Amino acid sequence: MAIEQQRARLLVSCQDRPGVVANISSFLYNHEANIVQSDQYSTDPEGGMFFMRIEFAWQEEKTAFSEIKQAFSVLADAEHYQWRMEQASRKKRMAIFVSKENHCLSELLWKWRAGELYAEIPLVISNHPDNKEEVEAYGIPFFHIPSTKANRREAEDKAIELLHEHNIELIVLARYMQILSPTFVSTFPQQIINIHHSFLPAFIGANPYAKAFERGVKLIGATAHYVTDDLDEGPIIEQDVLRVNHRHTTADLRIAGRQIERIALARAVNWHLNDQLIVYNNKTIVF
Amino acid sequence: MAIEQQRARLLVSCQDRPGVVANISSFLYNHEANIVQSDQYSTDPEGGMFFMRIEFAWQEEKTAFSEIKQAFSVLADAEHYQWRMEQASRKKRMAIFVSKENHCLSELLWKWRAGELYAEIPLVISNHPDNKEEVEAYGIPFFHIPSTKANRREAEDKAIELLHEHNIELIVLARYMQILSPTFVSTFPQQIINIHHSFLPAFIGANPYAKAFERGVKLIGATAHYVTDDLDEGPIIEQDVLRVNHRHTTADLRIAGRQIERIALARAVNWHLNDQLIVYNNKTIVF
Amino acid sequence: MAIEQQRARLLVSCQDRPGVVANISSFLYNHEANIVQSDQYSTDPEGGMFFMRIEFAWQEEKTAFSEIKQAFSVLADAEHYQWRMEQASRKKRMAIFVSKENHCLSELLWKWRAGELYAEIPLVISNHPDNKEEVEAYGIPFFHIPSTKANRREAEDKAIELLHEHNIELIVLARYMQILSPTFVSTFPQQIINIHHSFLPAFIGANPYAKAFERGVKLIGATAHYVTDDLDEGPIIEQDVLRVNHRHTTADLRIAGRQIERIALARAVNWHLNDQLIVYNNKTIVF
Amino acid sequence: MAIEQQRARLLVSCQDRPGVVANISSFLYNHEANIVQSDQYSTDPEGGMFFMRIEFAWQEEKTAFSEIKQAFSVLADAEHYQWRMEQASRKKRMAIFVSKENHCLSELLWKWRAGELYAEIPLVISNHPDNKEEVEAYGIPFFHIPSTKANRREAEDKAIELLHEHNIELIVLARYMQILSPTFVSTFPQQIINIHHSFLPAFIGANPYAKAFERGVKLIGATAHYVTDDLDEGPIIEQDVLRVNHRHTTADLRIAGRQIERIALARAVNWHLNDQLIVYNNKTIVF
Repeated sequence: MAIEQQRARLLVSCQDRPGVVANISSFLYNHEANIVQSDQYSTDPEGGMFFMRIEFAWQEEKTAFSEIKQAFSVLADAEHYQWRMEQASRKKRMAIFVSKENHCLSELLWKWRAGELYAEIPLVISNHPDNKEEVEAYGIPFFHIPSTKANRREAEDKAIELLHEHNIELIVLARYMQILSPTFVSTFPQQIINIHHSFLPAFIGANPYAKAFERGVKLIGATAHYVTDDLDEGPIIEQDVLRVNHRHTTADLRIAGRQIERIALARAVNWHLNDQLIVYNNKTIVF
Repeated sequence: MAIEQQRARLLVSCQDRPGVVANISSFLYNHEANIVQSDQYSTDPEGGMFFMRIEFAWQEEKTAFSEIKQAFSVLADAEHYQWRMEQASRKKRMAIFVSKENHCLSELLWKWRAGELYAEIPLVISNHPDNKEEVEAYGIPFFHIPSTKANRREAEDKAIELLHEHNIELIVLARYMQILSPTFVSTFPQQIINIHHSFLPAFIGANPYAKAFERGVKLIGATAHYVTDDLDEGPIIEQDVLRVNHRHTTADLRIAGRQIERIALARAVNWHLNDQLIVYNNKTIVF
Repeated sequence: MAIEQQRARLLVSCQDRPGVVANISSFLYNHEANIVQSDQYSTDPEGGMFFMRIEFAWQEEKTAFSEIKQAFSVLADAEHYQWRMEQASRKKRMAIFVSKENHCLSELLWKWRAGELYAEIPLVISNHPDNKEEVEAYGIPFFHIPSTKANRREAEDKAIELLHEHNIELIVLARYMQILSPTFVSTFPQQIINIHHSFLPAFIGANPYAKAFERGVKLIGATAHYVTDDLDEGPIIEQDVLRVNHRHTTADLRIAGRQIERIALARAVNWHLNDQLIVYNNKTIVF
Repeated sequence: MAIEQQRARLLVSCQDRPGVVANISSFLYNHEANIVQSDQYSTDPEGGMFFMRIEFAWQEEKTAFSEIKQAFSVLADAEHYQWRMEQASRKKRMAIFVSKENHCLSELLWKWRAGELYAEIPLVISNHPDNKEEVEAYGIPFFHIPSTKANRREAEDKAIELLHEHNIELIVLARYMQILSPTFVSTFPQQIINIHHSFLPAFIGANPYAKAFERGVKLIGATAHYVTDDLDEGPIIEQDVLRVNHRHTTADLRIAGRQIERIALARAVNWHLNDQLIVYNNKTIVF
């Protein structure tokens, strides 16, 4: 009779030094856990930082997840590891923010229903009512929070309240055309993913397709990144490009670009949900 | 018995209006020329600019090229066309400028010998002696013109003299790490192609790979463009990208990027040599 | 006051010979039509086939479309052209066939609603009831026609009847996992587009992802093609590929491949709807 | 004072079971080796095969490489590991086989001189004299061994003799247009890399570009693979593709394809030289 196994992911960061892999892998072996996948990265093997992601399988019937976690925290404290341990079976709680354009929203919802994105989606928030019907057809509550210059603070407070109420762990800005305040951003550190419709750092800010047309580029891009206080300056998670030519008007670029925006954002979100991302030094390590 | 046919290319720009294609194609038909390929582009069909590239075949024994050209100039004057007509069999005269790194130089020379680039290469000019042996192995004269801040003007004058002496029509900066003066640039308008080792307009200026590393991009790029007085702001001809990840150091990016620099530059040069490029409004139309 | 202009597309095939472009462009000029875009292709300029696609604008108030068409038919008869002339404003009538997997269906429907596919969709036909709700949410009638070995002929007859009844001009097999009979195929020549989930001609037939896994390929592909009687042997319209590695199981390939299936199929359908495709010699010319 | 560190790579295959990573990493830690990079792959975590590549740094002054290797062999015997341990500083000895077309040869030689391929190249063997000059310009001996149907066995014997004499560990078929005998192939198991000019398994055998033209594909490909007795059926190492269209003649495809042949082959050779490849079940694991 096959014993069902659970999967978990362990992410560790520390100063690089000999013995880290031996320490951690021995710990897991001693807890009867089998390493299914592992990846590591050193900024500089001599004195730099060390990052590791391990996916392991173990028998929950024998050892509770909390028990392994508790035991690891003792090792981590002793060894000065920064770490996270996540059960693969637990779905993260994700909110989507959208304005009028729905291509990124539709992509995420479609992939979510198809099982390609492993998450709970307790709500979608929008500053426009346009996508209410589509969202509700997926059985997801839709909250329309109009946002103007005058009421921006109230709107954000209301959003934060909703996000806290639903225990949201990840916020995806799926073409949400509003700039979030430093307060909002700092409330969800490394928990907000945005899609910018250009190949950053080219064409930062508003109207990147118009700027791309103006400059006469031969490829357009899209960039999924974590949001920080500096507009479009957060850690890049994924980028994609598409070949264009002199015939593309700004409107053509906008339509053509939807495809790469959708793909880049969905990939970035998937990696976050699978605990494949570590941020260090305003850059991402994608395991 | 098959009559051998010659090929030529005709490039025309004018205000868009009905009848241009009919006019030009009738002209060619009347001169017993067969349109082999044609491409056109209108910035805006109602009142914008019209651009056309036609490749035609004709029997030189019956009609001299100069005769067709002369006849077309009459039509063009009457219709206010801007135009060029080039015999496909005539090789353009191309000079290559290089500094120390030879990957772009090697690519061009290799493709040239393989018949992939249809040109004469009367000389290579460099501010370093490093690539002399490689160039001369191809039977091409190599001129070492050291260039320092102090002698830059003399160095450029010497280069211009050599270029004029050899009737150079196209200058390719194959990783030539010197900024050319406005005088030099204006001496060869739309005749200088540079390869910039980034996805312009990202990472303009020096050390783009170091900047790309710093920003943590997930794709690096290369851009071939015509040189104008504004550094890295000239009309883009071709761009290419390559996927990278957090493991790539600046040195790794530099090596990986060679591949796309080589490809983008060789493509741009080939298009120029085949009369496939028209510059308008600081952008290129690639036919 | 701006006079509104209509657009139309003219596709012409004939033996290559001098004067064809002059003839056609003069015809259009004489009917006060302005050539907005034109593209041509010769299999061999000396004695091969000539193909052309012209997009032109004209004032319908002055000249009816039927009038231009009638006039052109006189020229075409005299010159032995094969041709089609289509008004750009007229939406083609398209049916979608689907089985259980809905990723291609969803993509087409989403792009259709977003205005990226210019067509009428009077019906969707499926051998399974699964996608009924999604299709009807778009306001499109959904017909469930179960198809077994025993009733295949009746099922096809019923489908053909529905297609005729709705004057369908294009049938898209969006992952329709049934082989159509020669009778069905010959009823809609060059009007059926299929997506095959491999890089044809690799992995013809059933289970291409399992075969790709077995062979250990490093890229998987998708191919959109016109359907002919030879399974997976029809004229290829578009292909796309995606990088994979040894970690991908057959199930992973199946999921990853959805993305390129969606993109390749949607592009092929779009080109067909825009009259950009000519089939010659079991290959497509994509203008 | 910085102590210089040496690097080595360890490749291990075994039945998957808990504790393998712990075992190996503890072994390395006990020998004062620091794991710089590690990657692993399990065909199936429950009872499948386990593969691992570790790059480690250690101080040769303290512990000789042979000592670590000897110690590991004891562990490996006890644990039934299949394994290899290679010093990163040791250059593998590589021979190149070429016929007339030199684009793959030139690419390898260029990258070798640029330091992008870490190997010794003691000789190039060809069945044609054409590339003698180019090879010798790199200071590499060139052996012309004509190969006809009549003398194929003698030619191969002579080649094998030369390869043994020069202690060759890797043979790269850089567009060598001869089929090697089973005897030859079995003399160098998993030591022969070939570039096939198609996207395998499409267009197996001779003239793939002519077949690609005939089929009307929209992408052409190139495949680098280990050579086995079944023509073009060996484990695939790397593949690349390039977009083409109806305008490409067979000759155009042949020229365009050079670029992806060069890139795919050079990448595959580089991975082999860096001990990044494990063959299992006629597929490659690329670490």
